[in-house]
Amino acid sequence: MSNEVIGIIAGVLTSASMLPQLIKTIKKKEASDLSAYIFIMLIVGTGLWAYYGVLKNDIPIIATNLFSVVLNGIGLFLKFKYSPREEVFS
Amino acid sequence: MSNEVIGIIAGVLTSASMLPQLIKTIKKKEASDLSAYIFIMLIVGTGLWAYYGVLKNDIPIIATNLFSVVLNGIGLFLKFKYSPREEVFS
Repeated sequence: MSNEVIGIIAGVLTSASMLPQLIKTIKKKEASDLSAYIFIMLIVGTGLWAYYGVLKNDIPIIATNLFSVVLNGIGLFLKFKYSPREEVFS
Repeated sequence: MSNEVIGIIAGVLTSASMLPQLIKTIKKKEASDLSAYIFIMLIVGTGLWAYYGVLKNDIPIIATNLFSVVLNGIGLFLKFKYSPREEVFS
């Protein structure tokens, strides 16, 4: 298996790992047990990984991390939508 | 800033993003709103990223993803500990 295939499988798994969480949150309409910081740190962190991918000219890293930025943006939106205002940053 | 520094900052942010979640879960002793699948997918996915780092001889990728494997292992343990048994895989 080529390096690129392993990178793509790894990247799809780590990026898509947020999908079951988003689906669960949308179904329950409840996000009180979730930390807002996970989404904020992942938006910044996966954004930086995408930039690292650009510097290294590494397509699996760029593609899968940009996908993560989008998913974590949705996660942060859901956290604000489904948590009591005073609990968002607790 | 060298590529390695950007990779390390990105990796520390994405790996450490799970820390506030683990702290919140330990404090609340409640993990019902969390999806078990996020931890399972991240253990496999970041494990594969670490392997990708080995193939590419990329230290930031190896180090930060091994750290993620440990944190997500702890997260999965907490999910089992603080969720009603019948809800773990819902």
